[in-house]
Amino acid sequence: MNRGFGSDNHSGTHPQFLKAIQECNGDHEPSYGTDQYCIKAQQMISELFGKPVETYFVFNGTGANVFALRSFVDRFESVLCGDYSHLNVDECGAAEAIGGYKLIPLPSIDGKISVSDIEKAIIRKGDQHFSQVKAVSITQPTEVGTLYTLDEIKQIADLCHRHGMFLHVDGARIANAVVSLKSDFKKNITDTGVDVLSFGGTKNGMLFGEAVVFLNPQLCKTAKFHRKQLAQLPSKSRFIANQFCHYLSTQLWQEIAGHSLSMAQKLAAAISDCPQVKITHPVQSNGVFAQIPQKWVKKLREDYFFYVWDENTFECRLMCSWDTTDADIQGFATALKKLSENSNESLRG
Amino acid sequence: MNRGFGSDNHSGTHPQFLKAIQECNGDHEPSYGTDQYCIKAQQMISELFGKPVETYFVFNGTGANVFALRSFVDRFESVLCGDYSHLNVDECGAAEAIGGYKLIPLPSIDGKISVSDIEKAIIRKGDQHFSQVKAVSITQPTEVGTLYTLDEIKQIADLCHRHGMFLHVDGARIANAVVSLKSDFKKNITDTGVDVLSFGGTKNGMLFGEAVVFLNPQLCKTAKFHRKQLAQLPSKSRFIANQFCHYLSTQLWQEIAGHSLSMAQKLAAAISDCPQVKITHPVQSNGVFAQIPQKWVKKLREDYFFYVWDENTFECRLMCSWDTTDADIQGFATALKKLSENSNESLRG
Amino acid sequence: MNRGFGSDNHSGTHPQFLKAIQECNGDHEPSYGTDQYCIKAQQMISELFGKPVETYFVFNGTGANVFALRSFVDRFESVLCGDYSHLNVDECGAAEAIGGYKLIPLPSIDGKISVSDIEKAIIRKGDQHFSQVKAVSITQPTEVGTLYTLDEIKQIADLCHRHGMFLHVDGARIANAVVSLKSDFKKNITDTGVDVLSFGGTKNGMLFGEAVVFLNPQLCKTAKFHRKQLAQLPSKSRFIANQFCHYLSTQLWQEIAGHSLSMAQKLAAAISDCPQVKITHPVQSNGVFAQIPQKWVKKLREDYFFYVWDENTFECRLMCSWDTTDADIQGFATALKKLSENSNESLRG
Amino acid sequence: MNRGFGSDNHSGTHPQFLKAIQECNGDHEPSYGTDQYCIKAQQMISELFGKPVETYFVFNGTGANVFALRSFVDRFESVLCGDYSHLNVDECGAAEAIGGYKLIPLPSIDGKISVSDIEKAIIRKGDQHFSQVKAVSITQPTEVGTLYTLDEIKQIADLCHRHGMFLHVDGARIANAVVSLKSDFKKNITDTGVDVLSFGGTKNGMLFGEAVVFLNPQLCKTAKFHRKQLAQLPSKSRFIANQFCHYLSTQLWQEIAGHSLSMAQKLAAAISDCPQVKITHPVQSNGVFAQIPQKWVKKLREDYFFYVWDENTFECRLMCSWDTTDADIQGFATALKKLSENSNESLRG
Repeated sequence: MNRGFGSDNHSGTHPQFLKAIQECNGDHEPSYGTDQYCIKAQQMISELFGKPVETYFVFNGTGANVFALRSFVDRFESVLCGDYSHLNVDECGAAEAIGGYKLIPLPSIDGKISVSDIEKAIIRKGDQHFSQVKAVSITQPTEVGTLYTLDEIKQIADLCHRHGMFLHVDGARIANAVVSLKSDFKKNITDTGVDVLSFGGTKNGMLFGEAVVFLNPQLCKTAKFHRKQLAQLPSKSRFIANQFCHYLSTQLWQEIAGHSLSMAQKLAAAISDCPQVKITHPVQSNGVFAQIPQKWVKKLREDYFFYVWDENTFECRLMCSWDTTDADIQGFATALKKLSENSNESLRG
Repeated sequence: MNRGFGSDNHSGTHPQFLKAIQECNGDHEPSYGTDQYCIKAQQMISELFGKPVETYFVFNGTGANVFALRSFVDRFESVLCGDYSHLNVDECGAAEAIGGYKLIPLPSIDGKISVSDIEKAIIRKGDQHFSQVKAVSITQPTEVGTLYTLDEIKQIADLCHRHGMFLHVDGARIANAVVSLKSDFKKNITDTGVDVLSFGGTKNGMLFGEAVVFLNPQLCKTAKFHRKQLAQLPSKSRFIANQFCHYLSTQLWQEIAGHSLSMAQKLAAAISDCPQVKITHPVQSNGVFAQIPQKWVKKLREDYFFYVWDENTFECRLMCSWDTTDADIQGFATALKKLSENSNESLRG
Repeated sequence: MNRGFGSDNHSGTHPQFLKAIQECNGDHEPSYGTDQYCIKAQQMISELFGKPVETYFVFNGTGANVFALRSFVDRFESVLCGDYSHLNVDECGAAEAIGGYKLIPLPSIDGKISVSDIEKAIIRKGDQHFSQVKAVSITQPTEVGTLYTLDEIKQIADLCHRHGMFLHVDGARIANAVVSLKSDFKKNITDTGVDVLSFGGTKNGMLFGEAVVFLNPQLCKTAKFHRKQLAQLPSKSRFIANQFCHYLSTQLWQEIAGHSLSMAQKLAAAISDCPQVKITHPVQSNGVFAQIPQKWVKKLREDYFFYVWDENTFECRLMCSWDTTDADIQGFATALKKLSENSNESLRG
Repeated sequence: MNRGFGSDNHSGTHPQFLKAIQECNGDHEPSYGTDQYCIKAQQMISELFGKPVETYFVFNGTGANVFALRSFVDRFESVLCGDYSHLNVDECGAAEAIGGYKLIPLPSIDGKISVSDIEKAIIRKGDQHFSQVKAVSITQPTEVGTLYTLDEIKQIADLCHRHGMFLHVDGARIANAVVSLKSDFKKNITDTGVDVLSFGGTKNGMLFGEAVVFLNPQLCKTAKFHRKQLAQLPSKSRFIANQFCHYLSTQLWQEIAGHSLSMAQKLAAAISDCPQVKITHPVQSNGVFAQIPQKWVKKLREDYFFYVWDENTFECRLMCSWDTTDADIQGFATALKKLSENSNESLRG
């Protein structure tokens, strides 16, 4: 496969994570989440969030979301989420089928749902005919690479809490948000009032593995059973845990996020130079969304793979990663420029 | 943690698998099961089984079992399995809760269920009040380290097929069975008529990862959706696939299984020398089950961790692994001998 | 409780249905759907629809909808429905939780979803990440008392079939639609291409009981198991079946529907006379939806109970039934007039 | 269909229940469990049990069992029940599939499970790999017509409570037990420590309808949502409720149970006279279980329908009901005698 901008999970794993895995491979460790690396990683995550939190390691992003919400949302309860959220449209119905709750999709603008739409959806409390709204799930950064401000997150969390509800953040790429906002995890997550976070690893360069972080300890009283039943309890859990140890201790999370973000800015700049291509969402994270002339798409993808996000408008998604290089950006920019010039010529011709 | 005989997943990963991971980490690959390593591993598995099979990589053993059966067992159907099977007692109800089928446990002797008990349980066909029996699931090697003979597997498969049912094998440690029976995968699985196999990786030394192998292509027509919905679709799937490539291409599976088996034989021999300890099941795989005097258990576990399998009888489980050493066996034998002698003396005294 | 316009299930049962129950109470009958009355009712329903159909009797409307769709929609598949459909907002999440499929709500205008919105939602076929769209469910008459034209139903059915999908109609009050459209069941349901119908009994005057009618026999091959597992298999099924026999044989369905519809027309006329009240949807069935001045609502409900449909706009729902009387309409009209006049006076005063 | 001993749900409804239905059919009532008849019936049931209980009316027995347990048993929890319990083998897997919990079947003798087997099954508390045992479900009278003594029930309840667990009784025919034991509901259910009861109506002569009675109010805090989601919330609930009012107020429950029991005794006596037929369980309720010579079965069933309970041993089940007559017993006895004599003659001949 050619390199490209297909997804941040088209990249392999950052060499640091291979090192992390080798480092903890020495001898016997208890399995199923009780090894020394799990304990150490859990402590580091509590420090990162500035308070004691409870962390559960799981295999992947879909597993993290399903598990995080299932731990406290009952079968007659609902979760409000964005209409285009990963939860709603990219997990093959896992939320309903194995999470066991109902999703109520809300309209999103630039990938974000609004406090007022959330408020309007909190209805019919105690009405036995209506699946009771129990949580809100937002994605940060959103699926289209935009960011909720800390204030927006806080407003949603406050609204939830006023109604006895809870806020989940799908943070498959959360480090990108934290770095982009020039903030830290405590300010982003703890201080805004987030109750539970899917803390992504795989899309940030890990080999595999995610962490589900419960900031609200009331929500994970039976979580261990849910994790196991959902087949998300890794036996050799040390290999996920120690990746997180390295990710946090070496500030690797800042390095990877910072690189991905700056690559995305360069890519956006290159694309902006091309008059026929229109950037469709603010570029606040590691993805660039742009409407590309339909007839260019095939040619461009031959050299640099990327996904068409909307098959009607030919809005495309270009993702940068820990291993995106200046050469990648340059090459894509060149290809684009060539198409643009040819196109101009043909227009003129 | 001390070394010991706690589980074959207390060991880390065999160095060969680290090599496999590094090898495929070079550049971009498509995600979600479509990379070149998946394709290569799938081909190698087809060759191993002597016919074109369909292989799906998943994260872990519970996930493999849930997924394998859910792909073809509907919600009003049942699976016959052993009363002490992993499926029934060690997956926190995943089979029912996220697999969506009913389990009907049958009595097991030395971990094995009998053809006649299976036959008696195939009742009430077409009766709308009764969850319809659709599959049998056996574990090979069993949870107590014994083996079904090839003939026994064939008889069960034949019985299933006569009744329009299918046979699943939970092969979390299947390589141990194949090597112990001095056979090969084709004779063990394909020729006996197995329909779908959970082909274990993690307990055989991999970092993580299992393969679900459908020998009957009718059973996996919608499997890809089930895998995704069950949160068992790895994004960077190459890292599982290439471990399987190495496992098979280097005959690593034979090496690891052979080592584990021979260590178990040595351990069994050492234990047999001790008159106060009674081996409770034939040692046909990498586990030794033995009744150990209750008051010895704590002392022994301080040096070599292992699990008490039955808290009433103090039957204990001792597992050997790819990294079990002669020194481990020797050390344990010495500890045991010392306890035995002291005990004899106190008897004499 | 005062009489009123709360719901067509606030009425008791029509005397004819009591007669039907007594009639079949004579002696022993086999249970669970195999008695002579079930067979007779099934034949009559086939005649009604002008072709051999397969009919399953169930207890209630939620059960009918869950069962009808679960019979052919798998766990990785979705159903498109209206955002305000009973299925989506009044069954406490039963569709997802016990039906086992995902709902994708589409915007509705006057309670109806459009062909173009359905078409736009049929996306990502074969994409393992996306719950596959398998069916459309519409309500006829809709939850706000409007009607799809036969042509609209046919267009939706055709669209479904072109995409290998199926059309379900939630017909909790289907007889009202058939009578209002001066049509018959064959033209409404069979000839438009509906695949499966929830054929309501309870809201049309029965004591209890609904029928799920599969016009497409491919969809109910395992339906009997689903019905039993969903706890919707009535043991003394004759008592539902014989109500349907009477409902159809005596043209009771036309009588009840005709009466309810004409009462709704009278009620709408009375309401239209009141300048402060605004009818919000075309009155095409047995319900009248109207925006009533907030301060009138409490007073009006003391004499004639009805529900506030939208707590923000004070749009109210007034339902007529088989036992709604001219006196009911007259009384409500008088109360309304009095409030209106007082209100005018106070305006003038 | 011929009369016979097929099931107590082959009988129609007792005339008193038709009267109950007519009585409450007068005018409008609120739907979904809030009408005056529900309130009255709930009060009467509290009086019957000698303490304030919470009663939920549902449609049928399977629905009652699924709902009763789902109200407090979570998805990672299990219910211990008899291997031949209705819950386990006659509800098409509803417990697991829509109840959402795991069943652990225990061996039964004369339909009863033992305290010691229950105790042995309460294991691995807090172990995340093991579905946690949360409740015991027993059937009273059992599926084979036998009875737990009050002392046995109390012992099971006590054991449950010592372990933080709860006791459910499937009382589809509970009145028969109460009358047979010459006791009352308070002594049988309240004083023995039962936590929740499926209080049967249909098999005791009602048209339809069951009551789920929570004696432990902690177990039904969210029950109303579960009932609705399980499609077990009757809209015209008065028709079930008022049947219960009559059942209790007129001592109809004693009359029906007393009649059924005495018929069963007569039937058992008639059968005992026949040397070739062997009664297989103590006759303590309204059913007689007997091994009947295989070649007689077809002939006997032509005149008096009954079910073969065990197709291997030709143990048959003969059920008496509110409408079983002396003539039925006499006729069956005569047919049996004739077969017996012919058989003896042929033996002699």
